[in-house]
Amino acid sequence: MEKELVVVALGGNAILQPGQRGTFEEQMANVRTTCEQLAEMVVSGRYKLVITHGNGPQVGNILLQNELAKEVAAPMPLDVCGAESQGLIGYMIQQTLHNILTENGREDVPIATVVTQVIVDKADPAFKNPSKPVGPFYTESEAKRLAKEKGYVVKEDAGRGWRRVVPSPDPKAIVEKEAIRTLLENHTIVIASGGGGIPVIQEDGKIRGVEAVIDKDLAGERLAVDVGAETFLILTDVEQVKLHYKTPKERPLSRMTLEEAKRYHAEGHFAPGSMEPKVRAAIRFLEAGGKRAIITSLGKALLALDGRAGTTITKD
Amino acid sequence: MEKELVVVALGGNAILQPGQRGTFEEQMANVRTTCEQLAEMVVSGRYKLVITHGNGPQVGNILLQNELAKEVAAPMPLDVCGAESQGLIGYMIQQTLHNILTENGREDVPIATVVTQVIVDKADPAFKNPSKPVGPFYTESEAKRLAKEKGYVVKEDAGRGWRRVVPSPDPKAIVEKEAIRTLLENHTIVIASGGGGIPVIQEDGKIRGVEAVIDKDLAGERLAVDVGAETFLILTDVEQVKLHYKTPKERPLSRMTLEEAKRYHAEGHFAPGSMEPKVRAAIRFLEAGGKRAIITSLGKALLALDGRAGTTITKD
Repeated sequence: MEKELVVVALGGNAILQPGQRGTFEEQMANVRTTCEQLAEMVVSGRYKLVITHGNGPQVGNILLQNELAKEVAAPMPLDVCGAESQGLIGYMIQQTLHNILTENGREDVPIATVVTQVIVDKADPAFKNPSKPVGPFYTESEAKRLAKEKGYVVKEDAGRGWRRVVPSPDPKAIVEKEAIRTLLENHTIVIASGGGGIPVIQEDGKIRGVEAVIDKDLAGERLAVDVGAETFLILTDVEQVKLHYKTPKERPLSRMTLEEAKRYHAEGHFAPGSMEPKVRAAIRFLEAGGKRAIITSLGKALLALDGRAGTTITKD
Repeated sequence: MEKELVVVALGGNAILQPGQRGTFEEQMANVRTTCEQLAEMVVSGRYKLVITHGNGPQVGNILLQNELAKEVAAPMPLDVCGAESQGLIGYMIQQTLHNILTENGREDVPIATVVTQVIVDKADPAFKNPSKPVGPFYTESEAKRLAKEKGYVVKEDAGRGWRRVVPSPDPKAIVEKEAIRTLLENHTIVIASGGGGIPVIQEDGKIRGVEAVIDKDLAGERLAVDVGAETFLILTDVEQVKLHYKTPKERPLSRMTLEEAKRYHAEGHFAPGSMEPKVRAAIRFLEAGGKRAIITSLGKALLALDGRAGTTITKD
C-alpha cells in the first residue's frame, strides 16, 4: 500500500512550553515527547512525514544574544538568525527522532533537515504594515532610539514594553522544494521550512533575504502543496477547533467541509494570530487540491489521522 | 559523460578574511567570490559538487553571544551552536550559489544544505586531551572560574589570553550520508558537514551530541568516502603544498604519490593544525579508495582540477 504523505506543522509547545526558560535540556525533553508521537506515525508504516515547526522562542533568544553581544560580534540580520534557528531546532528533532526510531528497530529510516528559503512577494502589503513582534522587549526610549538608528518599526506590546515589529508576508514558493521532494521519494523524513522558512524576495530570478517572519502554518501549507501531500496536519495546544470560542455557546468541531470552514472563517470565529491562520492554511490547502487538513493537539495526532479526534476539514 | 563527483572543503577564508569583523555584508561578499568559483565548476558541466566548510569565526561569535546573554537566554551547548552555524553558513552559500547559477542560466540546479551529524568514538583519545581552542578569550581568573563552575578545560593561548579547549576527535561516519547520497543522485548540489559536522557519540545505536570540534578536512574526507567521491578538493590560502616550508630549502609540490605523501607527512614537513590535517585527510582519502586529492587555493580550483595548478595526490 502506498504510504500517505503528511506534512506535520508542530506548534510552539512541541519544543518549548509556556513558562519554561528554554534550556537545552528542557527543549530536548519536549522534543522527545513530540518525536514519540511522530515516531508512532512512522512505525505504523502508513505515513511518510515532512515536519515543519515554529521558532519563536529560539529566534527570540538568538536576536537577544545578537543584541547583547553587538559590541564584540557583528549582529546578523533576522533572516540569518532564522537560518540559525533552523539548524538548532532541526538538529534537536533529527537526533531525537532517530533515537526513538532506533528504539523501535527502525534505525534504517533516513532523516534530514533542509535549510529552507521561502519566496515572498516584495509587493506584499505586509511590507507596508509590519505587525509581527520579534526579539526582546525594550523601554520606550530604547525602542525609539532603535527606530531612529536602525529604521526598526517599534510598537508597544500590550503593556509589557516595546518591541520591534516586522512584516509577515504571505509565502509564495519553497526554494528548496525539489530537494525536499527528492528526499521524500527516497523514503527520507524531512524537516523543512522551520519557523515559516527564511523569507526571501525574488528579483530577476535572484533571491535575497528580507527581515520578516512568515506564519509557520501558512508556510507549512505552501510546503504541503509543493510536495504533493495528501494530508496537512496542524498540531497546536487544543484538541479541536471551536465555534463561539470562550463564549457560553462554545462548540467543538469534529468535521468541517471547506464551505463551512470558509463561512466560519468569514464570520470571525477564529482568533487572529492563533486559530485564524491555522484555519486559513487549512482552507488554502483544500482549495489547492489537498485531500484533508486536520487541526488537533500533539497527543491526539494519531487518533486524528484515523478520524477519531481533532477537527478534520475536507472538500465535501 | 558521467560527471565527476567532487567534495570541496572550503577553508575559513572562503567565508571570512583575517582581520575582518565578520559583518553579514563582509561574509556575503566573500561567499560571493567563493561561489563564483564553485559555479564555474557546475557550469562546466563536468562536476557534481558536495560543499563542506569551516565554521570557526561563526561558531566563535555564537559562543560569545551565548556567553554575553546568559543571564537572559539559556546558553546552548557547543554541539547546538555548531548546528546553528551550519544553518547560518549553509544559508549564505545556498542563496549566493543559486543566484550566480541563475546569472549563468542554470537556475534549474537544486541546492540544499543538510544539517549534518558526524559520529565520533567515545573512546577516542582526544576526549582525554582536549586541545582545540573555541570561543572567546578570558582573563586567567575568569577562565579558572569557568573551569570550576562548568568543568571547562582552559588553556593559555600564546600570550593572547585564556580559552576553553575541547576535544578534537576523529570522524567515524556521517549520520546523514544516505540523505546526502539521495540528493546527489538527483543532481542536487549539497552543502553538508559544515564546521566538521556536529559531533555525536553512539551508544546502543542511539546518538547524542558532545562538546567537541571535528577537523573540517578530516570530516570532509569521511564525507567524500561516504558519498563515493572521485575527487576530494581541499581549498586553503596557499596554492600548493610545500616541503621545507618557510626554510631556504622550501619547494612547492605539483604532484605527490600516496607513498611520497606518507613519507613527507612522517618526516614532519606539514604544520600541525594547518597543512598537516589536510595532507592527512588526503592520505586517508586515497587509502580508502579515492582517486585523487587536490590541495590548492580557491582561485586555482578549476585549473587544479585540470592538473594545471595546486598539489595533486594520487595513488601512483
